[in-house]
Amino acid sequence: MSNGLIVSISGPSGVGKGTVIAKLREMLPDCRHSISVTSRDPRGEEKDGVEYYFRTREEFERLIAEGEIIEYDQYVGNYYGTPLTPLITMSGKGQDVLLDLTVAGSLALKEKFEETVTIFLLPPSLKELRNRLTGRGTESEELVDKRMGQAKKEIADAPKFDYVVTNDSVEQAAEEIAAIMLAEHGRFKRRSETVEKLLAE
Amino acid sequence: MSNGLIVSISGPSGVGKGTVIAKLREMLPDCRHSISVTSRDPRGEEKDGVEYYFRTREEFERLIAEGEIIEYDQYVGNYYGTPLTPLITMSGKGQDVLLDLTVAGSLALKEKFEETVTIFLLPPSLKELRNRLTGRGTESEELVDKRMGQAKKEIADAPKFDYVVTNDSVEQAAEEIAAIMLAEHGRFKRRSETVEKLLAE
Repeated sequence: MSNGLIVSISGPSGVGKGTVIAKLREMLPDCRHSISVTSRDPRGEEKDGVEYYFRTREEFERLIAEGEIIEYDQYVGNYYGTPLTPLITMSGKGQDVLLDLTVAGSLALKEKFEETVTIFLLPPSLKELRNRLTGRGTESEELVDKRMGQAKKEIADAPKFDYVVTNDSVEQAAEEIAAIMLAEHGRFKRRSETVEKLLAE
Repeated sequence: MSNGLIVSISGPSGVGKGTVIAKLREMLPDCRHSISVTSRDPRGEEKDGVEYYFRTREEFERLIAEGEIIEYDQYVGNYYGTPLTPLITMSGKGQDVLLDLTVAGSLALKEKFEETVTIFLLPPSLKELRNRLTGRGTESEELVDKRMGQAKKEIADAPKFDYVVTNDSVEQAAEEIAAIMLAEHGRFKRRSETVEKLLAE
């Protein structure tokens, strides 16, 4: 059995990453997702390792120090982060994992685990990106300007990614990412036991 | 405009390369093919640069010496070979080119032009490969044995290729190669002007 892929998708705010990933999950129902680790307490029926990995603040900080957290944020006093080891475990079981990380997060993951497939989702144009950000209707002109400045900085990092996919249409972008995953399996195979097994016949 | 891909497909005799490539050409009618260069004389309506590039033996030998011929063979006293420059020219015009080369030819092309995408077509098993070779009904047991020995040697080179695709079904193998091509366009894009252009807006 060959390893599963770890596929990390990033892109500027407003590029439509969430929609493309949702479409992709529909197309590839066997694809796994990453479970976040948090320092907040479980609520109601939440179980460790299902909704979140629940850890204390001290444990979380130790995980950060150990380089186990790919990226994290604090929200209402609690840590939320993406842990590395579960991804490698899932991949080792032959499962493909799809991740939604910030640009910095994808690049950090690639550094930690070189086999990660990193995909940068690009808007068709900066004008269209502004339209999408404005179209949300929830953000002030000032905030849109700020996000556009951030977007330009992030897009400048696109050449560091393995692939760049333009989100012209959600359907097409999702199909292109699915094609990348199929192709990457063909890359994996050459390194795996397929060839060896055939020769050992 | 970004460059076209140069895609070179190889595999052992009997793997079904011709059928897969024919299927692929049906799926991707815009894909170009390589025109061979030969030292034989044009026949009837044949035109230089259409059916073949026609060159004298001396010219052909000079092309070999210049490293311009990726691979060649002699047949009834005439040279037939695959020239490098037309591939790079077509790619430069944004056209994808699909090539059918020997294993050695694909690896030689990759050496000369690193951006070449090399794909190794693998049989589902050695047993199945023997079935396919025997099924032709045109080859003696001895020749089949010889081809199987050659096939094993070639399969041992599969890990040197960018991708390995198993030819279980023609349809599926062709689709996997089409996916690889779509994915490789996503790789190309990150190196091309797409990102620069967006940032220059």
